[in-house]
Amino acid sequence: MNNFDFKNPTKIIFGKDTIKNIKEEIPADAKVLLLYGGGSIKKNGIYEQVKTALANVDVIEFGGIPANPEYATLMDALKVIKDEKITYLLAVGGGSVIDGTKFLSAAAVYDGDTPWDILTKNIRTEKGMPFGTVLTLPATGSEMNSGAVITREETKEKLAMGGPGLFPVFSILDPQVITSIPQRQLANGLTDAFTHVLEQYMTYSVGALLQDRFAESILQTLVEVAPKVLKDPTDYQAASNFMWSCTMALNGLIQKGVPGDWAIHMMGHELTALFGIDHARTLAVITPSHYKYNFEAKKEKLAQYGERVWNITEGSIDDKAYEAIAKTEAFFQELGIDTKLSDYTDNFEGTAEEVEKRFTERGWKLGERQALLPEDAKKIVRMAY
Amino acid sequence: MNNFDFKNPTKIIFGKDTIKNIKEEIPADAKVLLLYGGGSIKKNGIYEQVKTALANVDVIEFGGIPANPEYATLMDALKVIKDEKITYLLAVGGGSVIDGTKFLSAAAVYDGDTPWDILTKNIRTEKGMPFGTVLTLPATGSEMNSGAVITREETKEKLAMGGPGLFPVFSILDPQVITSIPQRQLANGLTDAFTHVLEQYMTYSVGALLQDRFAESILQTLVEVAPKVLKDPTDYQAASNFMWSCTMALNGLIQKGVPGDWAIHMMGHELTALFGIDHARTLAVITPSHYKYNFEAKKEKLAQYGERVWNITEGSIDDKAYEAIAKTEAFFQELGIDTKLSDYTDNFEGTAEEVEKRFTERGWKLGERQALLPEDAKKIVRMAY
Repeated sequence: MNNFDFKNPTKIIFGKDTIKNIKEEIPADAKVLLLYGGGSIKKNGIYEQVKTALANVDVIEFGGIPANPEYATLMDALKVIKDEKITYLLAVGGGSVIDGTKFLSAAAVYDGDTPWDILTKNIRTEKGMPFGTVLTLPATGSEMNSGAVITREETKEKLAMGGPGLFPVFSILDPQVITSIPQRQLANGLTDAFTHVLEQYMTYSVGALLQDRFAESILQTLVEVAPKVLKDPTDYQAASNFMWSCTMALNGLIQKGVPGDWAIHMMGHELTALFGIDHARTLAVITPSHYKYNFEAKKEKLAQYGERVWNITEGSIDDKAYEAIAKTEAFFQELGIDTKLSDYTDNFEGTAEEVEKRFTERGWKLGERQALLPEDAKKIVRMAY
Repeated sequence: MNNFDFKNPTKIIFGKDTIKNIKEEIPADAKVLLLYGGGSIKKNGIYEQVKTALANVDVIEFGGIPANPEYATLMDALKVIKDEKITYLLAVGGGSVIDGTKFLSAAAVYDGDTPWDILTKNIRTEKGMPFGTVLTLPATGSEMNSGAVITREETKEKLAMGGPGLFPVFSILDPQVITSIPQRQLANGLTDAFTHVLEQYMTYSVGALLQDRFAESILQTLVEVAPKVLKDPTDYQAASNFMWSCTMALNGLIQKGVPGDWAIHMMGHELTALFGIDHARTLAVITPSHYKYNFEAKKEKLAQYGERVWNITEGSIDDKAYEAIAKTEAFFQELGIDTKLSDYTDNFEGTAEEVEKRFTERGWKLGERQALLPEDAKKIVRMAY
């Protein structure tokens, strides 16, 4: 087990009819900016629940934060924060709204030239403007971590940020929100969370027996509940296990003491940038090829995963490892997620070379040993055509 | 899954040679009271590491906190805190020293008549004096939770306390401390952590699939590393998994969203009070009888535990459940822990009646449904003779 530090101060309020609890978490004298996305919260009743809970609080609203939260939009929100002397942020939405709110939490207290520096100069936020979240889409885990990814259309950049001051003060997770999420987004959420776990688990072993088992626990649970969530989003048992699994998949716990890969995400981000494919779907496209390409380095853990998550009992280590990759790809497909780039675009020729070029320009070496070169990424992406 | 709140702000600093990191966690202008137990830290080198790390900090020492931290001793420490205008506490020890420090954290800021009220009047501490810990004995999980148990010899009482202000600010977990722990205490620590998990897991099902699997992960890991820890405490892989498992066993995570039993602890406490038997050993005495007595209510979960933790594949639910109890008892015995009261005292007659009498006086109903009456406890304790 590697040495690690772990601290996660976010208060999770989990369960049925918990949105009303917002009012106990936000100081009565706060001036709140309520942030949300495209407005689905106004159709599914969540907006009303939030507004009712905040009846006695001074609240201004800012809607319209897009998927892949856009810098220009957030700069408009920042102006509202400054002009209105906002003291507390409340994100009501999925990962994009929460990530955008984290940027605003940092930007609101940043005193440098331009808030864009927070992203380009890797400025870590030690203490941001306090914010809470009401999660409406289980997937990214942003509701219990301190990281965010922000997009700038103007420069075609998608950059990460974070820091110990960017944990939500509180996050409200009511699994009943799942009933109003479209199937496509449920499938994306399941795939996103599943791949988050794989990135932190499918690496070389450092003898972290407990972390391996926690990761496998989340994978097993997602496999068990996925068909139930898609079949009947009102199945509260399935919904609650889905929601808590997504949070635990990326709240830092299973990453502690073990190496992380994250190459799948890096390659996937380029497919989103180039073709606009949903983030989760790019992960499903890259995952099988990544594991086949890096088979020798990962086959021991792949076989363990096959045994423990997919109950594969027959064959050699190699057999089990290959079977585990096949099971993973089939799992994504059963969720309705296509796993080849050519399923999403006819215009895929040259993508591998473009990814190689971008990674070369950035000088990137990826994977748990930082040994995956741009030419390796090219080959993996080509395998995913 | 039941509704729950979860917040755990303790910073964990885990790994080899991490004790030196204390100096980055304690404010430079703090006046520190260093608390420890019987002095073993002066023989195993931990005291030297702590003192070196605190070379530039104003530190006063208070040693001699006994196992089952004693109120009278702690009141002496409280006088030092007041007289010396201490601002920060540092516990260097196991669960007893850390629990005693939590009491002092609460008592130092308490403005009622007598600090004993904190225990007898269930006063929850919202904000105590800040404290950190250096864990020297993995077992209780006190290093990452906000609870404590304090003993008062004068009145033969052993009472619990807690509150959101009693999480350690930081805890340093260096698995290398295990090399200097006597075998008896290692076996106690393994048993204590194992039973902590059982108390939160061996209850009726609420469909919390992920919590079940996390609990099973800790149990599986303890089963896997226990013989290695006892055979060779310098086995770092075994030591690190043992240490992290003990912390995760009682830091709140696996208790969230599920019922807790804790009747084993309540009965066990009485055996410690009556005979001075080590806490962990009382748990091993009560556990098999408790599960046999409550067999019908717990057999489904016992069978699941048997399948997943002990790989029991044959037989009916009842068969698997009985076999799981037998495996558990055998596990304790393999650690060198006797599992019958008569192994510890010849004077056991009348114990069951005495426990029944005490529980009746306190009006206690125990277990996950608060349905276990004093007369049930009597029968369980008698089964454990």
